[in-house]
Amino acid sequence: MATKFVSERNIKFLLYEVFDVESLTKYEYYSEHNRKMFDMVLKAAVKLGKDLLFPIFEEMDRNQPELVNGEVKVHPAVKTIMKEFGDGGWISSRVPFDQDGEQLPSMVADICEFIFAAANYSANAYPGLTFGASHLIESFGSKALYDTYVPRMRSGEWQGTMALTEPEAGSSLSDITTMAEPTTEGYYRIKGQKIFISAGDHDGVANVVHLMLAKIEGAPAGVKGISLFVVPKKRIDEKGDLVSNDVVSSGVYHKLGYRGCPIVQLSMGDKNDCRGWLVGEPHSGLKCMFQMMNEARIGVGMGATAMATAAYYASLEYTKTRRQGRKVSQKDPSLSPIAIIEHADVKRMLLFQRAVIEGAQSLLMQCSKFVDYQKVLTGEEREKYHLLLEILTPVAKSYPSEMGIQAISQGLQCLGGSGYCDDYPLEQYYRDCRIHPIHEGTTGIQGMDLLGRKVIMHDGQAFLLYINELQSTIKAARKYKVLEKYAGELSDALTKLEEITHHLVSIAQLQGPEAFLADATLYLEFFGHITVAWQWLLQGIAVQKALNNGAAKKDYNFYRGKMFTLRYFFGYELSKTLGLAKRLVADDRLTVEMQPEYFND
Amino acid sequence: MATKFVSERNIKFLLYEVFDVESLTKYEYYSEHNRKMFDMVLKAAVKLGKDLLFPIFEEMDRNQPELVNGEVKVHPAVKTIMKEFGDGGWISSRVPFDQDGEQLPSMVADICEFIFAAANYSANAYPGLTFGASHLIESFGSKALYDTYVPRMRSGEWQGTMALTEPEAGSSLSDITTMAEPTTEGYYRIKGQKIFISAGDHDGVANVVHLMLAKIEGAPAGVKGISLFVVPKKRIDEKGDLVSNDVVSSGVYHKLGYRGCPIVQLSMGDKNDCRGWLVGEPHSGLKCMFQMMNEARIGVGMGATAMATAAYYASLEYTKTRRQGRKVSQKDPSLSPIAIIEHADVKRMLLFQRAVIEGAQSLLMQCSKFVDYQKVLTGEEREKYHLLLEILTPVAKSYPSEMGIQAISQGLQCLGGSGYCDDYPLEQYYRDCRIHPIHEGTTGIQGMDLLGRKVIMHDGQAFLLYINELQSTIKAARKYKVLEKYAGELSDALTKLEEITHHLVSIAQLQGPEAFLADATLYLEFFGHITVAWQWLLQGIAVQKALNNGAAKKDYNFYRGKMFTLRYFFGYELSKTLGLAKRLVADDRLTVEMQPEYFND
Repeated sequence: MATKFVSERNIKFLLYEVFDVESLTKYEYYSEHNRKMFDMVLKAAVKLGKDLLFPIFEEMDRNQPELVNGEVKVHPAVKTIMKEFGDGGWISSRVPFDQDGEQLPSMVADICEFIFAAANYSANAYPGLTFGASHLIESFGSKALYDTYVPRMRSGEWQGTMALTEPEAGSSLSDITTMAEPTTEGYYRIKGQKIFISAGDHDGVANVVHLMLAKIEGAPAGVKGISLFVVPKKRIDEKGDLVSNDVVSSGVYHKLGYRGCPIVQLSMGDKNDCRGWLVGEPHSGLKCMFQMMNEARIGVGMGATAMATAAYYASLEYTKTRRQGRKVSQKDPSLSPIAIIEHADVKRMLLFQRAVIEGAQSLLMQCSKFVDYQKVLTGEEREKYHLLLEILTPVAKSYPSEMGIQAISQGLQCLGGSGYCDDYPLEQYYRDCRIHPIHEGTTGIQGMDLLGRKVIMHDGQAFLLYINELQSTIKAARKYKVLEKYAGELSDALTKLEEITHHLVSIAQLQGPEAFLADATLYLEFFGHITVAWQWLLQGIAVQKALNNGAAKKDYNFYRGKMFTLRYFFGYELSKTLGLAKRLVADDRLTVEMQPEYFND
Repeated sequence: MATKFVSERNIKFLLYEVFDVESLTKYEYYSEHNRKMFDMVLKAAVKLGKDLLFPIFEEMDRNQPELVNGEVKVHPAVKTIMKEFGDGGWISSRVPFDQDGEQLPSMVADICEFIFAAANYSANAYPGLTFGASHLIESFGSKALYDTYVPRMRSGEWQGTMALTEPEAGSSLSDITTMAEPTTEGYYRIKGQKIFISAGDHDGVANVVHLMLAKIEGAPAGVKGISLFVVPKKRIDEKGDLVSNDVVSSGVYHKLGYRGCPIVQLSMGDKNDCRGWLVGEPHSGLKCMFQMMNEARIGVGMGATAMATAAYYASLEYTKTRRQGRKVSQKDPSLSPIAIIEHADVKRMLLFQRAVIEGAQSLLMQCSKFVDYQKVLTGEEREKYHLLLEILTPVAKSYPSEMGIQAISQGLQCLGGSGYCDDYPLEQYYRDCRIHPIHEGTTGIQGMDLLGRKVIMHDGQAFLLYINELQSTIKAARKYKVLEKYAGELSDALTKLEEITHHLVSIAQLQGPEAFLADATLYLEFFGHITVAWQWLLQGIAVQKALNNGAAKKDYNFYRGKMFTLRYFFGYELSKTLGLAKRLVADDRLTVEMQPEYFND
């Protein structure tokens, strides 16, 4: 029933007014691009989303994948989607010109993915995963592997996957048991089980290429013994034909949501005839996989934001048309009911959604810009943006995942009873979005990554760079009278963040890692609110610049809405840091000392 | 896969140690009861939940109700459930002896309903709604209506419903358009539409009795013109046969969850032959309905708590058996993985669930006790508990509804990817529980009820009584050294609550009702955290008393767990009031001033 799933106005605001993507074209690598071309790409992405993906958003959910005769059957449109995304160059939008790609800035390519995910998250997973897997072969694989797999993946003929999780190794990858036995033929013999593999098998493509973690016989224990392999569903035999590679789909999960994309259980080597080809060096698989995982984590944040964005527009549409009740100051029952968007509490629920989605979208575009900087800069400058991206990745993954659920829940609430029924899309968004705090590393894992790794890495260098970035935004914001208050509030929160971080690091030294990391999830949440407040301040600066430069009248309402949402974020969201801050310094080892047996009864 | 859905130990702790249900037996009305009998009732309720309700929890979800040839088909077990609940006296557990009821204290009857709802919320809705509807006839209906309907409802032969909502009148009941035309035959001719009617039609009973709001022709506009009617699906004709009463089931909703119970769309009087019988006085329908609605609101809180309790035990079971990773202080990969309940972050997620569910359950039992006091006390004392119940009702409805969702979401998170799949029950709880902030008055409506009605009613009398109750608990807690800290924290929060309440009331006077109520939902949340902190302090006192009186050794772990959860609540949950408090005094009319057109683009 909803008709809109993204705001093109907001996309352009972020791309051109906040993050100035055009400035990238002054660098050699992006010099052949210009704004006109970016606009065309965006227009094409919106059209593809509208025409191909959005119309089957519900259909793909209602007809979930099933395992039939050993193969996973998916919605027939998946074949078309993979072909369109291949032919249209969407899978290779980030690929350099010299590999026949579009060489688009990440900022533009990522926003296209955002559009696709908003239109239909499950549908976008197929080409999205394929790009990620092909990029891994491109980065670390041999020329032979590249030639065999990459072109067919970029054309959408073959699906790519990331095959990590096993029945006994989810969050703890060091415990994988899938084995790779070396042969003298240039390949390894693979034996093991993988579970929860997104797009792990389906009939919309001719082949599925797994980028799979396994251990070579005799490898060291733990993560140091993990290697990365290409393990295709079908391999090419001597005659050039595709033949079975002994990868069996042993199950497809029935899930709460995200049902348009199959999550598959795989069994390799039941007939002792599963071949895998090593990617990169032996035992360096996790390092390779982390490139893809980091991209995938930001991708999850992007998808979570996109989904919550689509849900926001569906709920906004409803609140504009649904009439119910009267202003609390006008109780006369003979007056006509008003549109529910007139009620302060409904405006609050809409502002909350908007504060989350536009704040998160800004953060993700910030990350994309840092990716672009890594491409065009060198030396210390490059390292700077690398470190900033490292520290922002767990936040960019988890803030949209966690807050997106709350935003969608408020969107559902705007529809009342109708939100609970499948006549409207909110219930599906509510189901779909629950995957995000789980896949590609749970929120708990992200918290430990942020506090236990990123904040302290290189003697706190990434953290320091982060603080500097925020401080320079605060300084810039202070030039605008209307932003002074918010600059001050962010500055206070940032001081608190520094204090708490130093406090926690001292706990690490005094009490060890368990006490240090016990509340890492809360630290992540705290860090997230502050990071998104920074993004709102950046947006506020862009609004003030536009207004000072004589914005077009047709844009007034957009900018007013932005400023109200900024005020909402600082008033309602940033204040959530107060309670978290209190807890983070409490230091009573409560969750460490709690014993499992006290949960009995 | 889960085996446990409630804690009998905790139920007994609350009933006997915290709220001393036995003390009620000193009053004449409950004098025929004793602890032994209560224990037997509880045992029977648990057995019924285990044997009849819990085993079909998933089945009822997977086979949702459908409209077939004008009648709603439900799971065949519904017939058995209604019969068992009728025969076993569960529908009449609160009914006086002189009406052949069990005359159980509400505290005991309500905890039985809690057990049933934990076992299977949808299944419990059928008898639960039937009791509510029959109670309304008992309270306000004529003897003739009582004789015709009540015995057949209490026996489980006939279903009862509450039929309020219409396509154009959900939260705004004043806009209902269902009409009642008087006749000279003692009945009214009903014409209109109702939507979202729980158990509004099904083939598990011989008849469905709607307690329906309608307007008598010529009635005043708004809520003052609403009357209450009994409108059965089938009426009894002159020969004593059941014949159609022109109530047509025009649709059954397909919902996110709560699928074991049909939510029905009804059309009355299509053939101009739908008869309704007035309950109580003309135009006093809302007053009557409010009795049922208040009970239903507390019932929703109870159901939400019960569901989150069952989810907690399912996630607890998983965390005890699932092995993954090692302590962060022990990274040696050659060590065996530990049960995930050993991880601090998992303990945090379990403690969060437990803090919410046991806190909410305590609050609900507190409400039940006040209901009991209203039964046995008179005059000013009775009025005191009436007012306390009035102010607690929106909190008892909304805290478990909102926090229950978060608790269940954390429960799901404990299972990782498995939580997202339907091999485990968490995904169903996550779907089921989302109804609670919507039905029987949304959270927004509860916020306005609390701040706009209950807090200021009788010149703030209810609010004052509430403050006094909390202060006397704080005083009692200060006697225990280990509780002093928490008593102090609650005292500080309570002072803050008083300040904020006075501030908001002054805004009502200075700026009018819209500014006053703009953040009523946040006020409700703030109030909720404080109210549940009070309940935890009450539990803390009971634990300390038990320990001082030489608790049995087998109870040590239970009491230790209680104290850790109390500490968790004060450390992690009560601190959430800090951010809310900041916002509640901000007074910038943000959501009032935001204009609908600023949401464009």
